[in-house]
Amino acid sequence: MSIDAQRPHFGRVALVGTGLIGSSLARVLRRDKMADSIIACARTDATRAKVLELGLADEVTADPAEAADGADLLVLCTPLGAYADIMTAAGPQLAPGAIVSDVGSAKMCVIRDVTPFLKPGVHFVPAHPVAGTEHSGPEAGFAELFQGRWCILTPPPGTDPTALEAVTAMWRKAGSKVEVMEARHHDLVLAVTSHLPHLIAYNIVGTAADLEAVTESEVIKYSAGGFRDFTRIAASDPVMWRDIFLANREAVLEMLGRFNEDLSRLQRAIRWGDGETLRELFTRTRRIRREVLDAGQDKKS
Amino acid sequence: MSIDAQRPHFGRVALVGTGLIGSSLARVLRRDKMADSIIACARTDATRAKVLELGLADEVTADPAEAADGADLLVLCTPLGAYADIMTAAGPQLAPGAIVSDVGSAKMCVIRDVTPFLKPGVHFVPAHPVAGTEHSGPEAGFAELFQGRWCILTPPPGTDPTALEAVTAMWRKAGSKVEVMEARHHDLVLAVTSHLPHLIAYNIVGTAADLEAVTESEVIKYSAGGFRDFTRIAASDPVMWRDIFLANREAVLEMLGRFNEDLSRLQRAIRWGDGETLRELFTRTRRIRREVLDAGQDKKS
Repeated sequence: MSIDAQRPHFGRVALVGTGLIGSSLARVLRRDKMADSIIACARTDATRAKVLELGLADEVTADPAEAADGADLLVLCTPLGAYADIMTAAGPQLAPGAIVSDVGSAKMCVIRDVTPFLKPGVHFVPAHPVAGTEHSGPEAGFAELFQGRWCILTPPPGTDPTALEAVTAMWRKAGSKVEVMEARHHDLVLAVTSHLPHLIAYNIVGTAADLEAVTESEVIKYSAGGFRDFTRIAASDPVMWRDIFLANREAVLEMLGRFNEDLSRLQRAIRWGDGETLRELFTRTRRIRREVLDAGQDKKS
Repeated sequence: MSIDAQRPHFGRVALVGTGLIGSSLARVLRRDKMADSIIACARTDATRAKVLELGLADEVTADPAEAADGADLLVLCTPLGAYADIMTAAGPQLAPGAIVSDVGSAKMCVIRDVTPFLKPGVHFVPAHPVAGTEHSGPEAGFAELFQGRWCILTPPPGTDPTALEAVTAMWRKAGSKVEVMEARHHDLVLAVTSHLPHLIAYNIVGTAADLEAVTESEVIKYSAGGFRDFTRIAASDPVMWRDIFLANREAVLEMLGRFNEDLSRLQRAIRWGDGETLRELFTRTRRIRREVLDAGQDKKS
């Protein structure tokens, strides 16, 4: 492993999980020749065959222990709920100096689930590339997914600076802007910018599908009025998102509580015909859209 | 006025309101030579000047009565809350045989507010083109806005078939698929496919802006995780949307009640770690996304 920030390089990289994010990372590692070899770990025969067919790894396995054996860098790219089991198997195989990282959307739980399995001398750099699409699986990935996006690292206190530097260099090479943040704060920030929006989108799509007065085909037919944007978000991977909500429960419930309070206020304004409360909020939110555009976080369409 | 469905044609068309929808309709009327002349009514000097500069109308006025005088077709394209005042002025000027239509996103209220001002022989065909962007004003319009989108007509019982045919032909020429629906049903359908999604988006963006633990700049910085899609919807015109919520109050509150019930169930599932309830919903909503794509209601991205 070498941590020239311009040319980060690893010997053997083990990717456990080869969905949208894992397979995109594999493509980046290939494109930029950042690994001597890649071993991919996936549960199903079909996924492993697909990974080989797409040329995303040199070897495949169903066994996290085999993946970890001899790895310089092990990256967990599965739903969060699988981490503890994977580390139970993989942890003992990792040699001192190896780095464990991940791509999970919540970080307190990752530190909780991974740390107990780290042998002395094995480094741990939790990471969260804030990027994605609503598509899943190894075919859905692409090397440009991380380009221009943030990648948040949440190294626990005392993390080895060299390991941190190596993971930072890898994500910079992937095109990401890297930020270091405390895990607890990460989980709050993401609860509001990502987890709550997904929960709300899943919920509204479910509500719409359950109506009797309006048929599902009508909902779909007239979805261009706003609903269709929610369906895109609500098409994200079910298991991955189940695990995110369970893993980041505390922060999500906190944000949901605030959302509900605010929604009750709007509900009351509508019921009582208080147009000024509505107009004032709708004017304020418009400004935030401008700031999102100014920050380059969405296409100006 | 001639109602050749292939070549719908009006003499004098009055467009009251020249925002995104009104100005797009003006562009369509121009492009397809559907009107001998267009008079645009707008409240501010700046808007009237812009309309003339863009060549969207032959004449401009600030007075709805002047716009209505001699019009074969008068289309209300303002926020819903302005309809009654406009019709108070415009109604007496309309000659028998003239058609009144509109583009409002709620229809029961339109029938309530417009009907009292219709002289005998003046026809009324409420319309709702289900199309839009988050941008406002005459510069934001474009002739292709309605292409491939639904336009819902909600003619009251007894509507003159020729008037209905003329408005239908105009929207077909604009590229829309035209559907006739009962006004009450329209308001329910749109409450779920458009009004509730907007309310939720406005609300979540407001919630995010009001946090103390997470700064607004962090929210914007990490908005790619889902939040940014809500900011786009929450950038829609504040006054237009205030009026929609007040006008379609009953249906919106009904849908919001169901949304809240469903959200409480998800909240409980998260609190108690009931992953199966989450996974089951998230799998179901994914299917609806596929149906939206299959119905051609969104780009396959």
